[in-house]
Amino acid sequence: MNSELSSQQVKDIGEQGLLKRLQRFCTSEIIGDDAAVLETVPGQSLVVTTDVLVDGVHFSNLTTSPEDAGWRAAAANLSDLAAMGASPLGITVGLGLPGEVKVSWVERLYQGMTECLQKYNTPIVGGDIVRSPVTTLAITAFGQVNPSQIIRRSAAVVGDAIVVTGVHGASRAGLELLLHPELAHNLKDAERTALIRAHQRPQPRLDVLPILKKISASPCPMPIAGMDSSDGLADAIIQICRASGVGAVLEYRQILVPKTFNQWLPPDQALKYALYGGEDFELVLCLPQELASALVQQLGEGAAIAGKITAGSTVLLHDEQKKFPDQVLNLSQGFQHFGQ
Amino acid sequence: MNSELSSQQVKDIGEQGLLKRLQRFCTSEIIGDDAAVLETVPGQSLVVTTDVLVDGVHFSNLTTSPEDAGWRAAAANLSDLAAMGASPLGITVGLGLPGEVKVSWVERLYQGMTECLQKYNTPIVGGDIVRSPVTTLAITAFGQVNPSQIIRRSAAVVGDAIVVTGVHGASRAGLELLLHPELAHNLKDAERTALIRAHQRPQPRLDVLPILKKISASPCPMPIAGMDSSDGLADAIIQICRASGVGAVLEYRQILVPKTFNQWLPPDQALKYALYGGEDFELVLCLPQELASALVQQLGEGAAIAGKITAGSTVLLHDEQKKFPDQVLNLSQGFQHFGQ
Repeated sequence: MNSELSSQQVKDIGEQGLLKRLQRFCTSEIIGDDAAVLETVPGQSLVVTTDVLVDGVHFSNLTTSPEDAGWRAAAANLSDLAAMGASPLGITVGLGLPGEVKVSWVERLYQGMTECLQKYNTPIVGGDIVRSPVTTLAITAFGQVNPSQIIRRSAAVVGDAIVVTGVHGASRAGLELLLHPELAHNLKDAERTALIRAHQRPQPRLDVLPILKKISASPCPMPIAGMDSSDGLADAIIQICRASGVGAVLEYRQILVPKTFNQWLPPDQALKYALYGGEDFELVLCLPQELASALVQQLGEGAAIAGKITAGSTVLLHDEQKKFPDQVLNLSQGFQHFGQ
Repeated sequence: MNSELSSQQVKDIGEQGLLKRLQRFCTSEIIGDDAAVLETVPGQSLVVTTDVLVDGVHFSNLTTSPEDAGWRAAAANLSDLAAMGASPLGITVGLGLPGEVKVSWVERLYQGMTECLQKYNTPIVGGDIVRSPVTTLAITAFGQVNPSQIIRRSAAVVGDAIVVTGVHGASRAGLELLLHPELAHNLKDAERTALIRAHQRPQPRLDVLPILKKISASPCPMPIAGMDSSDGLADAIIQICRASGVGAVLEYRQILVPKTFNQWLPPDQALKYALYGGEDFELVLCLPQELASALVQQLGEGAAIAGKITAGSTVLLHDEQKKFPDQVLNLSQGFQHFGQ
């Protein structure tokens, strides 16, 4: 790319010119009609989710490359579909842009988005580009799900096991390492890179859905409760309990964090990142014990049965070795310094 | 509403507080999951369209009440669905808001949106509310259509009649009357109000779809070409011709304008508003002559066969009474002063 091209701004080529440049990232059949047309599988329900991201609020050139901002935006929406049990059909991208934004910045944003989307065979099927005083990214994702396999927050029942599909806290640790590079002083390079990558390139857990379908394929499928942990593991469990009118007990030693944490962070700091860090985009699922065991076995390392659903409305963090007293998790109070 | 409530700002109640206040405008089943679930009719294709609207660019408190901004945003998206032949299933609403925006402003925006949506039985099924330095409204609309009845820009064929579903220019005239009230001096109150209303409360032509379905219900349905006239009547016809690789001849006397225009505007000003004004949200449809005649008869006053599709690529404005010379319509050149 020569310097003239790389310094080109949106106002130099206009919204229509930019649309043409971005068409290579979109499915070809969408171009030139008032709306996109998509085929769906008969008998499946349509699932829709939408997110708005604003420069300086949700992303920033200071900490995030445009590719990573694009990846994270796509991943967050795909994760919302996974959290409903839905397979993605496509996304639309609405962009508000100041005229001064570089065309190359927008292309790199789309590059990151499509890298994530292609991994899950998801096309960009439509969009809109408009002038705005602030860079704004509005993504709507839609997917489909067999109605009997919809995952809802409100479906947890007493006795369910709580499965967490992967470790928590990595994304938050990665963000801290980006903001405060000096924290990496006793980490190996590969460890540091892995945590930062967890923050920059989170993986939506759409891969869990076929496993879930396989293990729950009984004559009368049980409704599975769940959501993603985008706002933190504690938030996910509390939201599920609220929606289902139940409580939960979490086992302290089953709140799994990246192995790196063990030598690097004090235990209560590690736990804080895991419970409240957010943006790990794992799934938190509530299902009968035998299905939960089968699921964890199939998911492999990082997945765990983190606790169980109880009567009442309390979400309790419990140490089975009784080194630490029980602690009630409560979002409005935030994290309480643990065990000391 | 007491003065304390009416002066409440978004930052006083936060995004979560605002979400609660807006839930009465949304379908109840969407609350509390990561995404909304919608039922579709088996065998129908999914149609998706998205629009981003930015304060100061696409709407402004100076010329548009929040109710009208909401109505117009909903209408524009429903019109895009109508332009594809699709019946609406629902919309998602992404909102970016400065903390200083009044809660009552947001409620009035939603009031206007839902007034329009309810007319077409369309629910708000999901959304996102975030902080932003500028008020931004991102709407994605979903609809469904029988695959054989999809209306595409690219399906026009030589010999097709061009049906315009209603008069053009009213919305632009209404905007001019809002910006320059003195222009109304020789209009009756009811005439002025009707033009302003056409601008503030445009009607998406979803009502055309069942008529189209009825008249085209032959054993082998013809593909119908078309789009909406949101960017102007001339734009719609030129876009259809470009996408279909054809030309068109428009009859000057069949470009219908509101009757009010006859005494109020010079003919070339009236024609300019009709061809280039935009935001009338009528449909421009290309179909065989006999179907076109049946359609116009069913649609009633305001609808007309405005011309026909020809070989070549020229879009010609023609006066059958030969008072005026033929004129080639071309978007890049814009409107040429007509006939004098």
